[in-house]
Amino acid sequence: MLPLVIAAQDRKLVKYVSPIIGTAKMGHTFPGATVPFGAVQLSPDTDTIPYAVDGKYNGEVYRYCAGYQYDDPTIVGFTHTHFSGTGHADLGDLLVMPTVGELQFNPGTEDQPELGYRSSYSHSNETVEPNYYKVVLDDPKVLAELTTSERVGFHRYTFPESDQAHIIVDLKSGIYNYDQKNIWTVVRVLNDSVATGYIQSSGWARTRTVYFAITFSKPFKNYGTSSSREKVPYQGFWRKFDQAKNFPDIAGQKITMHFDFDTKEHEQVQMKVAISPVSMKNALANMDAEIPHWDFDQVKDAGQQKWEQELQKIKVDLLREEDYVNFYTAMYHAALMPTTYMDVNGEYKGLDYEVHKAEGFVNYTSFSLWDTFRAFHPYLNLINPERNADMVSSMMAHFDQSVLKMLPIWSHYANDNWCMSGYHSVSVVVDAILKGVYKGDPHAALTACVQTANARNYEGIGEYIDHGYVPDEVSGTSVSNTLEYAYDDWCIAQLAQHLGVDDVYKTFMHRSENWRNVYDHQIGFMRPKDTKGKFREEFDVLETHGQGFIEGNTWNYSLYVPHNPDALMEMMGGPAKFETYLDSLFTMHLPDKFFANTEDITREGIIGNYVHGNEPSHHVVYLYNTAGAPWKAQSRIRMILENQYHTGHDGLGGNDDCGQMSAWFIFNTLGFYPVSPGSDEYWIGSPLVKSASIRVGEGKTFLIKTINQSEKNVYVKEVKINDVPVTNFKIKHSDIVAGGTLTFVTSNKPVKN
Amino acid sequence: MLPLVIAAQDRKLVKYVSPIIGTAKMGHTFPGATVPFGAVQLSPDTDTIPYAVDGKYNGEVYRYCAGYQYDDPTIVGFTHTHFSGTGHADLGDLLVMPTVGELQFNPGTEDQPELGYRSSYSHSNETVEPNYYKVVLDDPKVLAELTTSERVGFHRYTFPESDQAHIIVDLKSGIYNYDQKNIWTVVRVLNDSVATGYIQSSGWARTRTVYFAITFSKPFKNYGTSSSREKVPYQGFWRKFDQAKNFPDIAGQKITMHFDFDTKEHEQVQMKVAISPVSMKNALANMDAEIPHWDFDQVKDAGQQKWEQELQKIKVDLLREEDYVNFYTAMYHAALMPTTYMDVNGEYKGLDYEVHKAEGFVNYTSFSLWDTFRAFHPYLNLINPERNADMVSSMMAHFDQSVLKMLPIWSHYANDNWCMSGYHSVSVVVDAILKGVYKGDPHAALTACVQTANARNYEGIGEYIDHGYVPDEVSGTSVSNTLEYAYDDWCIAQLAQHLGVDDVYKTFMHRSENWRNVYDHQIGFMRPKDTKGKFREEFDVLETHGQGFIEGNTWNYSLYVPHNPDALMEMMGGPAKFETYLDSLFTMHLPDKFFANTEDITREGIIGNYVHGNEPSHHVVYLYNTAGAPWKAQSRIRMILENQYHTGHDGLGGNDDCGQMSAWFIFNTLGFYPVSPGSDEYWIGSPLVKSASIRVGEGKTFLIKTINQSEKNVYVKEVKINDVPVTNFKIKHSDIVAGGTLTFVTSNKPVKN
Repeated sequence: MLPLVIAAQDRKLVKYVSPIIGTAKMGHTFPGATVPFGAVQLSPDTDTIPYAVDGKYNGEVYRYCAGYQYDDPTIVGFTHTHFSGTGHADLGDLLVMPTVGELQFNPGTEDQPELGYRSSYSHSNETVEPNYYKVVLDDPKVLAELTTSERVGFHRYTFPESDQAHIIVDLKSGIYNYDQKNIWTVVRVLNDSVATGYIQSSGWARTRTVYFAITFSKPFKNYGTSSSREKVPYQGFWRKFDQAKNFPDIAGQKITMHFDFDTKEHEQVQMKVAISPVSMKNALANMDAEIPHWDFDQVKDAGQQKWEQELQKIKVDLLREEDYVNFYTAMYHAALMPTTYMDVNGEYKGLDYEVHKAEGFVNYTSFSLWDTFRAFHPYLNLINPERNADMVSSMMAHFDQSVLKMLPIWSHYANDNWCMSGYHSVSVVVDAILKGVYKGDPHAALTACVQTANARNYEGIGEYIDHGYVPDEVSGTSVSNTLEYAYDDWCIAQLAQHLGVDDVYKTFMHRSENWRNVYDHQIGFMRPKDTKGKFREEFDVLETHGQGFIEGNTWNYSLYVPHNPDALMEMMGGPAKFETYLDSLFTMHLPDKFFANTEDITREGIIGNYVHGNEPSHHVVYLYNTAGAPWKAQSRIRMILENQYHTGHDGLGGNDDCGQMSAWFIFNTLGFYPVSPGSDEYWIGSPLVKSASIRVGEGKTFLIKTINQSEKNVYVKEVKINDVPVTNFKIKHSDIVAGGTLTFVTSNKPVKN
Repeated sequence: MLPLVIAAQDRKLVKYVSPIIGTAKMGHTFPGATVPFGAVQLSPDTDTIPYAVDGKYNGEVYRYCAGYQYDDPTIVGFTHTHFSGTGHADLGDLLVMPTVGELQFNPGTEDQPELGYRSSYSHSNETVEPNYYKVVLDDPKVLAELTTSERVGFHRYTFPESDQAHIIVDLKSGIYNYDQKNIWTVVRVLNDSVATGYIQSSGWARTRTVYFAITFSKPFKNYGTSSSREKVPYQGFWRKFDQAKNFPDIAGQKITMHFDFDTKEHEQVQMKVAISPVSMKNALANMDAEIPHWDFDQVKDAGQQKWEQELQKIKVDLLREEDYVNFYTAMYHAALMPTTYMDVNGEYKGLDYEVHKAEGFVNYTSFSLWDTFRAFHPYLNLINPERNADMVSSMMAHFDQSVLKMLPIWSHYANDNWCMSGYHSVSVVVDAILKGVYKGDPHAALTACVQTANARNYEGIGEYIDHGYVPDEVSGTSVSNTLEYAYDDWCIAQLAQHLGVDDVYKTFMHRSENWRNVYDHQIGFMRPKDTKGKFREEFDVLETHGQGFIEGNTWNYSLYVPHNPDALMEMMGGPAKFETYLDSLFTMHLPDKFFANTEDITREGIIGNYVHGNEPSHHVVYLYNTAGAPWKAQSRIRMILENQYHTGHDGLGGNDDCGQMSAWFIFNTLGFYPVSPGSDEYWIGSPLVKSASIRVGEGKTFLIKTINQSEKNVYVKEVKINDVPVTNFKIKHSDIVAGGTLTFVTSNKPVKN
C-alpha cells in the first residue's frame, strides 16, 4: 500500500498531466474529470450523433467515441461515462446541462445552438486538469465545474440571476446513437432534491442498464419531463395525473427531465450524480459512501491526490519540459481504463444478467484486449500489479458467467461486443500468472484459456483447429486471425508448461506454429489461403482492407510472430533480408490511397509503411534486435517517441486505445518493451529518460540511469543491470521487480558489435 | 392448516368446476391450467391482437383480456400468465406452440392459419379441468396437455412421427399489444435442453420484466431464432457468429425461438417453463423446487388436490346439479387472483424497482380493487383469512415502495395502472383489520390509508378535500369519485375509531358525508356539480357515458352510499319513495342505445336498468331491506342468481372481474352479503343452498340450514342464528367465525312483517 498522505514536496506530478492531449482528431480521449480507473468519467460532449441518418451509417459517430472534439464550437452537455481512446463509440450516460430561460429538451444543432439546450464556449474559458474540468457556458452565462469520486459525478454550476434557471437531465441522450439507443427509462423523484432512476440502452453494449441517483444542493422549485416525450399506448394514469409536471413516478422510452430554480447572481447550484450497475438503492449507497457532503473542492482535491499517488509510481528525469507533459499524460491515459464496475458494496451485474458480489477483488470492465494485451497490461503488471490481478479476476468472472464459455474479447458493462480478432485475454491471464501477479487458481485459468481457444463457432476457430489456419473463405481477416491465434496459443502453452499440464502444452505449442501456414514463400509475405491450401491470387501487399487482415496490411502483419521472431526471420530469409524488410517498412513511400484506408489513425500515425497508430506493429521496431541491428531499433524508437507523441490537443497520432499507445510510450521512454507478453523478457530499446525510479512493490524501487543522455545520443553503447552487462538486449521481469538498477550508456553513434 | 392429504371419499368437488364457464363473450375467464392463486396461468390463446391498427385503437383487444374466446376456430399458442375476468388486457407471456413441418415464426391469421404457427382445433377434442387442459391441435396433429405448479407451467406434447417437429417459443407475443409491447428480450441457451432469459414489456403494466427458465424432457437437435428478427444497429458479434442458429447468447427486441426435434409416432416431448419476477437464477430455482422431475400426472394431481382443498372449505347441498357447477366454479374463479408474486425464496421486484424479500407473508399481485373490495376480499376474510392478510401485507409493501405514497389502485406486477376510481384498498385494509384478519401494525395501516386519501394530485382528491366533492370540471367521473371517496373515507374513520385516533376519525367521518354534496334534490339523483356549486345542466339519468360516472349511470350510482343507506333513503324521500325507486330500477325498460354504452357486460348482464355485470350496483338489491321490503330483496336475489349465472361457456353476464362476480354469487347462494365492507355486518338475503358448512378457522365450522328450501320458496320466513331469531336481517362477522348455525325457513310467499 502506498501512504495515503503524500508529503507536500512530492505533490507536483499532477501539474504535468494535460488531459486535453488527444482530444482533437483521432486521439479520442476525453478532457473531463475522473479518478484513476474510476467508474465515472464526467466530461463535456461537443455533439450528439445518431448511428444512422436516413437509415445509413453515419460516419460522424466515429469522431465522437469520447464525446468531445476539440475543434467543435459548442458543448451539448456533460455526461458521466466515457471510453478513452477507443475506435468505437458508446456510453455518454446521463447528459446534464444547466440552462437559463425558456425550457428546451433537445440539444439543437452546432449551427444553431439556440434551437436547443447546448451552448457555445471558448477554450480560453476552459480549464482541464485531472479530476477537474471548468468551462464558461456562454449562452446561459453559467460557469460549469466538474469533479468526481469513483462512482459519483459532482457538478458545480454558478448561475446568473434568474427565475428561469434550469438543470436539464437528458436521459435519452447517449454517445453512439443519440435519441435511438435508449430503450427504457425510469425516474423516481423522491423529494424536492433527490431523484433516482435507470436508463436501459442497446448501443454497442447490447443490453445495458445504468442506475442512478441525483441530488441537488438546493431544492428545485419545480420539475418535470418534456411534454413531447414518447407516449406509451393507453396507460390508465395518463388521465389520472398531470404527468408532465411535478409527477414523481416516471417511465418511458425517451425522457428528458428539467429541474427548475430561482437563482441569485453568482449563486452556485451543486449536483451529485451517482451511478450503479445494479440498482437505484446501490446508487444512493454509492453517493452516501463516497460524497456525503457538498464540498466540491474537497472532492476535487481528493481525486487529484489519487492521481498524484498514481503518477508518483514512476519518477523520471527528462531532457525537456514537454517530455514530462508527454510522460505523465501517458501515465494518466494509461490509468483511465478498464474502469471500476461494481458498487461500494461489491455488487455488479454480470454477463449472465445476475447480480454478483465481487469477493476479494475489484471488478473492472471495458477490456479492449486486442489493443491492451500488448503493452498496457504488462505495464500494469509492473506498477499496478494488484489492479491487473483484479482485472484477471474480472475476466475469470466474465468467463464463469459466459454462456459461450469464453473469456472476454472486447467486453464492457457485462456485454461482449466481440470486437477485433484473437482471444487475447489469454495473453493477459498467462502473463499475469507467469509474472506472479495473479494469485487465483492457475488451473482454472488454464481451463478458461483452453475453452476460449476451442470455441469452434467463433471467428473461424473451428477451421483453424482443423486446418492449422483460418481459411480465406471463412473470415475476411483470416490471416491476422491465424497469426494472432498462434501467438495466443503460445501463451496458453507457456501456462500449461508452467503448470506441468503436458498434453495442453504440446497441443498449444503445436498450434503456436500455425503462423507458418499462412506464409507465402513465393512472395515473402503472409497471405490468405483457402481451405484447399491455395493462396489467394489477387492480393495487394499494401492495401489494408479486404486482404485478410484487420487494421494492418501484410507488410506490417507479416512480422506478427512475437513469440518466435527468430523462426520468422529464418522463414523470411535470414538476418540480412529481415533487416532489409524492416528498413523498407520504415522508409517506403505509402501512396495516399492506402492511407485513406488505414483505420483509426491520422496521416501522422504512419512512418513510411510502419503504422504506429494501430497496434499490430507495436513490437516491430524491436525486430531489428533479432536481425542483429539493435542500433536501428534504438534510433527508430527515439524517432517514434519524438514523432508520434506531442503535447498539443492533437498530440496523439491515432486512438490512444484505452492506454495501449500511452503504455508503449512509457515503456519505450524507460528503455525496454514487452515484445511477447507471456514471456518474462523485456527487450532493450533506447531510453528517453536521464533517470527514472519505478516503484515495483513493497518498498522496492527499480532505478534506471542513462549516462550521456541527450537528444542526439539515441544509441545504446552499453547496458548493465546491477552492474552486470546485458549482452542479449533482454532483461527479465524478475530483474525489475527485485529492485535494482538498469544503467544505459548512450552515444550519438551506432554501436555495431 | 388443512390436512395435506384429503380422504378419498371427500375428493369430489373438483369435478363440479367448469373452467370453460365465462370463456365466451364478456366473461373474460381463461380455460387453462393453474393452481389456487398461482403465479402461472398456462392457457390457450385464440388470437393475438395489437393494441392499435393503423395508429387507431383496436377494440378487439378487449375481447382478448384472457386470451381465449370460445367461438374462435384456432389456437395461437399457450401462454403462461392470464388475468381472470378483467376488463383490460395484459400478460400472455411466453407463447409456446408445437408445430410440425416448415418453421414459422409468426402466428398467421384466423382466416389463414397455415400462414403461421397457429392451429385449428375443435371443442370436441378439448378437455378443461382445474389445473389440466388438453386439446388436439389439428394442423400439426399434436395432442397438447397443460398443467402447472405455482410458478411452473408444464407442457406435454404428443407428436406424430416427424424429422421436423418444433416447439416455437414466441417471446415477442403478448396479450394487449401483440408484437409491440415487448421492449427487450434475452435468451441464454445453457445446454441441449435448458434455456433461460427474460422478456421486458411495456403493456398495461408500464415497466415489467418476466424472467424464465425452460427445460425440455428431450434434448433438442437444433435451436435458433427467427431470421427476420429485428437487428440492433452495428453489433460486432453479427460478423463473429452465425447468430440465427445454435447461438446461445441472444438478445434483441423481437425474438421468436424454435427448438427442433426428431419424433417418433406418439412420442411425447415435455417442457417446463418456470417464471420469476427477479432473475433467471430464481426461475431455475423455482423450477428445481417445485417440479424437479418429469411426471406430468403427478403435477396435475397435486394441483387438483390443491383445488379440492380450496373447494372443500365450503360444502353445500343444492337443489339442482347445475347449481353445484355454478357454485364450485364460482369458488374456482374466486381463487385465481390476486396471484402469487414472489419466488420460492421469497424475493420479488417491488414498485420501487428493487428486489425485496417478503418476510412472513406471501406477496400477491394484480389487485383489481374497484371490483374486489366489495365482496371478493370480504369472502377471503371468511374462508381464506391468511391469504387476505397476506394480500393486505402486499398492499402495505406496495405503499412502502410507492414514490407517490399511495396504496394500490389497480396494481399488477409492481406497476400501478391507476385504473377505475376510488382508493378502495383502504376498504380492504380496514375490513381485514376490523375483522381480526390482518395482524400487522394497524397504525401503520391507518397512516397508509390516510396518506392515500390525501394524495391531492390524484383524480381530483385535492379538490374533493377543498370542496367536499370532486367538481365536474376536474374529472369526467366526478360524481362516482365523490361517492366512492366518501365510502372509503368512512372506512378510514372506522379504523381510526377502532384505534382511538380521534382527529382522524372526525376528519374522515366528516368526509364520509360528502356524498350528500352531489345529490340534486330537484331531480332526486346524484349529479355532477361544478366548482361554483352549480349542477350540470345537460344531464341524462340513463346514459352511462360522459355524465360524471364510471361504469354506471346515475340510476345505479345514486344508490352508492353503502355506509349510510338510511340517510340516503331519508335524502331520497323516505322508505316508500326509496322502494319505488328500487322497483323502477329493476323493472324499467332501458332503451337499446343505453345498453350499447354500458361497458364490460352483455345484454344479459342487465335486469331492467339494474346492471349486475358492473359492480357499483352489487349491494343495491339489499337496499330493499333498508326500505322495509326485504321480501323484494329476497326474490330478486334468487332471480339474479338464476338469471345472471349459468353453466354454459357464456355463463357469465359480464366480466368476472377477478372473482368479484363469483364472490357475489357465493355470498348470495349462502344467504348473506357484506353490503358495506369495513362494517362487521352481513345483510341477510335469501339462500340458494339447502344446507352448507363453511370452514371458518381452526376446527370451526359455520353451518347454514334452510328449511323448506325449493326453487319457488324464495322468501325468508324466519332467520335464526344459533336458535336466536335474527330480527334486523343482519348478522355479524363474529357470529360466523365463532362457528354455529344460521337457520333459514323459506316460503313461497313474501313475509311482510
